[in-house]
Amino acid sequence: MSDIAARFADIVGNANLLTGDAIPEDYSHDEELTHEPQQPAYVAKPQSAEEVAELLKVATDYKVPVTARGSGSGLSGGARPRKDGLLISFERMNRVLEVDTTNQVAVVQPGVTLTELDHATLDAGLSYMVHPGELSSSVGGNVGTNAGGMRAVKYGVARHNVLGLQAVLPTGEIIRTGGKIAKVSTGYDLTQLIVGSEGTLALATEVIVKLHPRLAHSATVLAPFADFDQVMAAVPKVLAAGLVPYILEYIDNMTMAALIHTQNLELGIPDQIRDSCQAYLVVALENRTASRLEEDVETTGELLAELGAVDAYVLEGGSARKLIEAREKAFWTLKAIGADDLIDTVVPRAAMPKFIAAARGLASAAGGAAAGCGHAGDGNVHLAIICKDPDKKKQLMTDIFALAMELGGAISGEHGLGRAKTPYFVELEDPAKVALMRRIKQSFDPAGILNPDVVFAAPD
Amino acid sequence: MSDIAARFADIVGNANLLTGDAIPEDYSHDEELTHEPQQPAYVAKPQSAEEVAELLKVATDYKVPVTARGSGSGLSGGARPRKDGLLISFERMNRVLEVDTTNQVAVVQPGVTLTELDHATLDAGLSYMVHPGELSSSVGGNVGTNAGGMRAVKYGVARHNVLGLQAVLPTGEIIRTGGKIAKVSTGYDLTQLIVGSEGTLALATEVIVKLHPRLAHSATVLAPFADFDQVMAAVPKVLAAGLVPYILEYIDNMTMAALIHTQNLELGIPDQIRDSCQAYLVVALENRTASRLEEDVETTGELLAELGAVDAYVLEGGSARKLIEAREKAFWTLKAIGADDLIDTVVPRAAMPKFIAAARGLASAAGGAAAGCGHAGDGNVHLAIICKDPDKKKQLMTDIFALAMELGGAISGEHGLGRAKTPYFVELEDPAKVALMRRIKQSFDPAGILNPDVVFAAPD
Repeated sequence: MSDIAARFADIVGNANLLTGDAIPEDYSHDEELTHEPQQPAYVAKPQSAEEVAELLKVATDYKVPVTARGSGSGLSGGARPRKDGLLISFERMNRVLEVDTTNQVAVVQPGVTLTELDHATLDAGLSYMVHPGELSSSVGGNVGTNAGGMRAVKYGVARHNVLGLQAVLPTGEIIRTGGKIAKVSTGYDLTQLIVGSEGTLALATEVIVKLHPRLAHSATVLAPFADFDQVMAAVPKVLAAGLVPYILEYIDNMTMAALIHTQNLELGIPDQIRDSCQAYLVVALENRTASRLEEDVETTGELLAELGAVDAYVLEGGSARKLIEAREKAFWTLKAIGADDLIDTVVPRAAMPKFIAAARGLASAAGGAAAGCGHAGDGNVHLAIICKDPDKKKQLMTDIFALAMELGGAISGEHGLGRAKTPYFVELEDPAKVALMRRIKQSFDPAGILNPDVVFAAPD
Repeated sequence: MSDIAARFADIVGNANLLTGDAIPEDYSHDEELTHEPQQPAYVAKPQSAEEVAELLKVATDYKVPVTARGSGSGLSGGARPRKDGLLISFERMNRVLEVDTTNQVAVVQPGVTLTELDHATLDAGLSYMVHPGELSSSVGGNVGTNAGGMRAVKYGVARHNVLGLQAVLPTGEIIRTGGKIAKVSTGYDLTQLIVGSEGTLALATEVIVKLHPRLAHSATVLAPFADFDQVMAAVPKVLAAGLVPYILEYIDNMTMAALIHTQNLELGIPDQIRDSCQAYLVVALENRTASRLEEDVETTGELLAELGAVDAYVLEGGSARKLIEAREKAFWTLKAIGADDLIDTVVPRAAMPKFIAAARGLASAAGGAAAGCGHAGDGNVHLAIICKDPDKKKQLMTDIFALAMELGGAISGEHGLGRAKTPYFVELEDPAKVALMRRIKQSFDPAGILNPDVVFAAPD
């Protein structure tokens, strides 16, 4: 065992420090599509903030690059380690420390999965409302990527649901930010700076998340539209009507066909309607009372008809759940049908029709294709890119991101930059902003050990 | 005219650069209670981001301290200038640039007041929901302090309603952050870092704010309670019931008496009830439909009765409006009855009874008094401190803030630190966090020109 490995093992114990061939393959990647797996030099499994602090002090001393890992379900390569690096896995820091019903918050360790948190809050009638597709994802991973998901249209993304952190700076200080409080104007908001920083500034060792009441009644309306632009035009109207959907998604016909086929969905839509439709809108509603929900479903149906929907299907419990689950698993479906890359660009929602049409045009001009679904209420467009030639694909991705930015959007709406998108970010973003972010990075991480290939790395 | 003044005048024009006796007294202070007014050396009134950038470049070159000013309605001295400094007043940058109904955002210059923004969004049926007490406050000021107000319990504070900025760095670069988008995971969130930074990092020259639909029907329920702790215990129950009040305030009996007296409020509460009550809960509800509102008001009344309210008065349009306005003007009322200092501490809402009781105890032990009202749903406690002896008052304030922090809270929930609270912050906050914030400050403002007495100044 090397000197460095011995130092790490002293901190976490021999059983919790892996090196060389003892490192399972799973630690060498997340779910990003475009990079080969990379085994790290060391995997450490700390069980406390103090152990994380000691690990980071040693890593800073020896200039060992450090990558944090929750469940490894990220889609941008933010948890892909360096060959010479230390992977800190939070799998042992997986306790729900407190469900506080008076303050409506939970205090959790970063390795807790969303499924575990959901179970822990069920009896209190409360819920952490951030639901990215993968419910095996960890709260720590949600903090790192500023995770979103379908419910963001009502409940916001991780940023809006993380109220405070215990975090370890790369220099070893343990700080607490925010708290069980919904508002604070006392110095800079370190919580919000760390959320979404993809493990490049500090590592969260405790997270205070906001909980919302679980509403007893919900229903899902599925509306096929003959024309894609009609779907997009319907979105702001549904929101302006004050119906407050908790899910507002579009699914294009190619993606819907793949979902139906791979997940054996039975949605009760006649073939002739499916064949003539370009896209679907999914509107999920919830309410305190059954009668209000029923009324809202009816209002939604009428509104969608006015807005040009061919029909509106109210999905019953089982098929509604299956559709939402299928949508959550869209990534796997798109991967299975041969996606070469993924885009989770965000644009102002008014710009979605223009963006999607142009992205498809660019893809087909490059000899490829782009298909997908997305969080229509948020302007968050998920596209699977099919383009086998790596150079053409890189140019296509660059062109699509440049277009999104020109329309007032950004490269990633919820997956983060990771290894996958950092090169595009560095190429396309305003150099003054990148330089400012680099100075902020240095103010946290003077030795540059935390996830050095993410946010700032040069194109590879 | 000095060389420096001439440089500033070259940028904004002679008519928009004031020096010496030509500077009206109003520019020498905001509404903070404890510092004497201070005339700045220069007042500049730029009309564009480019002019702001040029002003800041000159200020950086000559190391002239710079204070930004919106409407000057702040309560912590964040807009109090330096004697040798430049005050940048945004009064000429006061245009609503766009009300975008599809994306449900407005793009405004920082000098726009909330009243002006409210008028501009009325016809679209939309509203910027941040309502600090003073509606003459500017959007730029809201950004600086991360302003809150009564509606935060439903709609969040400025942080949650500011989606993007154009901002000028002290070194003169003009950057754009965020956008007309509700989510983004693309590098560090510079928007959220600048919001609440009290003009110490960068100056906002354009603000993209989120708009919400205006709901057609609203009502206000006023419930007196015999016991203060009952009010506090009622708050989480009202929230857990899923009634989603847009205002949830408590008012203690001393403050209510002052409000009724100074504002000639007629609330229809019999004297014997007023005399026997320690505090009031104000619950404002809104809905899309009149019938749902009526039902919610009834449910609220029943719930409050169960929770121990002596009665529940549904205030009609005029008297509801007068009560809310009186509450918004509580600061002026408390000032008029002789407040020597103000506290807007935030604590976890479960800790409010303990905090308020202890703060009152500390005040009376110091020979003074503490009375107030607050945003009960947010744990944001507003206390007027009456304590004539400056040293005793300083110790009292220190003790109260230390207590709030011990309970998991923070010094300011919405006013910001400003000149008034910075010394307490520097004394009480974790030195590792203050040092980190100072490094972040340097990454934006290497010359240290922006509001140098705020967030980091030593006790005076």
